[in-house]
Amino acid sequence: MHKVIFDTDPGIDDAMALLFLDASPDVELLAVTTTFGNGAIDTTTRNALYLCERFGIPALVGRGAGVPLVGQPGPAPHFVHGHNGLGDVALPAVISRTADPRPAHRLIIDMVRAHPHEVEIVAVGRMTNLAMALRDDPGIVPLVKQVVIMGGAFGIRGVLGNVTPAAEANIWGDPLAADEVTAASWPLTMVGLDVTQKTQMPTAYLHALQETAGEAGRFIWEISRFYEKFHNDGGVESIFVHDSSAVAFLLKPELFETRTGAIRVVTEGVAFGQTIQKPDSVSFPPSDWDGRPSHMVCTDVDSEGLRVLYAETLRRLA
Amino acid sequence: MHKVIFDTDPGIDDAMALLFLDASPDVELLAVTTTFGNGAIDTTTRNALYLCERFGIPALVGRGAGVPLVGQPGPAPHFVHGHNGLGDVALPAVISRTADPRPAHRLIIDMVRAHPHEVEIVAVGRMTNLAMALRDDPGIVPLVKQVVIMGGAFGIRGVLGNVTPAAEANIWGDPLAADEVTAASWPLTMVGLDVTQKTQMPTAYLHALQETAGEAGRFIWEISRFYEKFHNDGGVESIFVHDSSAVAFLLKPELFETRTGAIRVVTEGVAFGQTIQKPDSVSFPPSDWDGRPSHMVCTDVDSEGLRVLYAETLRRLA
Repeated sequence: MHKVIFDTDPGIDDAMALLFLDASPDVELLAVTTTFGNGAIDTTTRNALYLCERFGIPALVGRGAGVPLVGQPGPAPHFVHGHNGLGDVALPAVISRTADPRPAHRLIIDMVRAHPHEVEIVAVGRMTNLAMALRDDPGIVPLVKQVVIMGGAFGIRGVLGNVTPAAEANIWGDPLAADEVTAASWPLTMVGLDVTQKTQMPTAYLHALQETAGEAGRFIWEISRFYEKFHNDGGVESIFVHDSSAVAFLLKPELFETRTGAIRVVTEGVAFGQTIQKPDSVSFPPSDWDGRPSHMVCTDVDSEGLRVLYAETLRRLA
Repeated sequence: MHKVIFDTDPGIDDAMALLFLDASPDVELLAVTTTFGNGAIDTTTRNALYLCERFGIPALVGRGAGVPLVGQPGPAPHFVHGHNGLGDVALPAVISRTADPRPAHRLIIDMVRAHPHEVEIVAVGRMTNLAMALRDDPGIVPLVKQVVIMGGAFGIRGVLGNVTPAAEANIWGDPLAADEVTAASWPLTMVGLDVTQKTQMPTAYLHALQETAGEAGRFIWEISRFYEKFHNDGGVESIFVHDSSAVAFLLKPELFETRTGAIRVVTEGVAFGQTIQKPDSVSFPPSDWDGRPSHMVCTDVDSEGLRVLYAETLRRLA
């Protein structure tokens, strides 16, 4: 049984990943912590509360960071997730679920200390909450079972960033936080664009979810219309599977191939937000990667296996 | 007939590329300009003069920059090219050839202005001389036929840097110069590690050169012993073909596949010296690549075709 904290900025693909976690019989979702990113923190927190209420997800919801460790957030990508962060589908004016009084990073610390060596953190937004938890209580590092991050682009098979030619959005949104999170010696895996852009969910696949996965399937179909149009406008035939790829890594890591090595994140200049791994298998002269822990980066994925896992899991909600 | 300025830091593979140019019936070598890099500027200039004297190369030799535009040079990579820059083979104490009185960047400017629209610059060291020529006389830009650079690593097929996980040596040695050179609107192609590490010359190939390419072939065999040992120590079976790949692009561009797009060079932080192209075929939000000219980056190479071209050309010196 995976005891999971889901750190997220819903976000269309965040919602799809949350429903994936909720549907999985092997997951106990302890908390959903929110961060700015796909929308402002008010928007993403409202969406997290809405999703937990509508789908009866019993996890605590913790409101997290609204700004990066340094500077101010960039504009929310309304062209990707809609103005309300959920593809502009109708949302109720009032939501009865309320957030835990603790800020997200404190909730993360408390959960990790309450369940030592058991908590797995799946982080699919900016890394700000995790970095704040580390700054507040570095003692949690050896107590976390693993961290799985959707973020970064490592140039594997020539994959570029999606905000700039160098940077993926989650990392670009707070590169200092990501550099601090990857400096920590906890078991950590980055699921970046190198694999998340390889896996797509075609329209027919999403349509089948609508028919077979109950209310969740119908909701996914509804919110994914906006997301699919954004992809189509960019020349991509169907939607990339970003956040759910991190959940798939948690549930079935054998779907992925990985490479180990220290990771640095660029915090200034034209490459701002870029993630760079120094593979353990390659020798270099002394460099800024030295002394950092070795982490895993996903280099390839069985996309069809991932789609099957997602659909079979969601179908349990029918 | 290619009218060529060869900007170089000999260097073992630089010497191999110079002999390649000299042997080519389609090349008129106007000048050899030197830069620091594989050795200090005294060493690389001495080597350029020696090579021109020994092999009767009539080109002018211009002594160039000894330091990058900003800062000081890193230590010379004696473990790659030997202490004398030519694999520590015996060199004469006295060389009668002397350098042109003009500094390299002035020689470049004068040559370009003397042969408008005809000069092709093959630059296989730090980009400092080219950047100084641009600063001194930006009017040369539309007068240069093309610039071919050995340098950079663009993450194509996951290729990394060779000084750090992000940076290739020639660009790492003066990233500001490279950023200025790639900002200029002259026809420019970068031949980076993405292709130069794909092409290797095995021991048997080098041995055949020794037997078939006269004094030049015997010299290449001699100096490549040190270089090959460095490669072997790093787990590479035979030598990479760096600088001669840029010459091959000049002579037979159809051996290469290319991608167009603006190029930036990282001048600070952990990615110092990294080259990043924004492919023209991919859309991004406004970024630091905007307004820069589109240049070519080599993405693939017919390595066997390149080896055949090199051997057939060198055999003319037998």
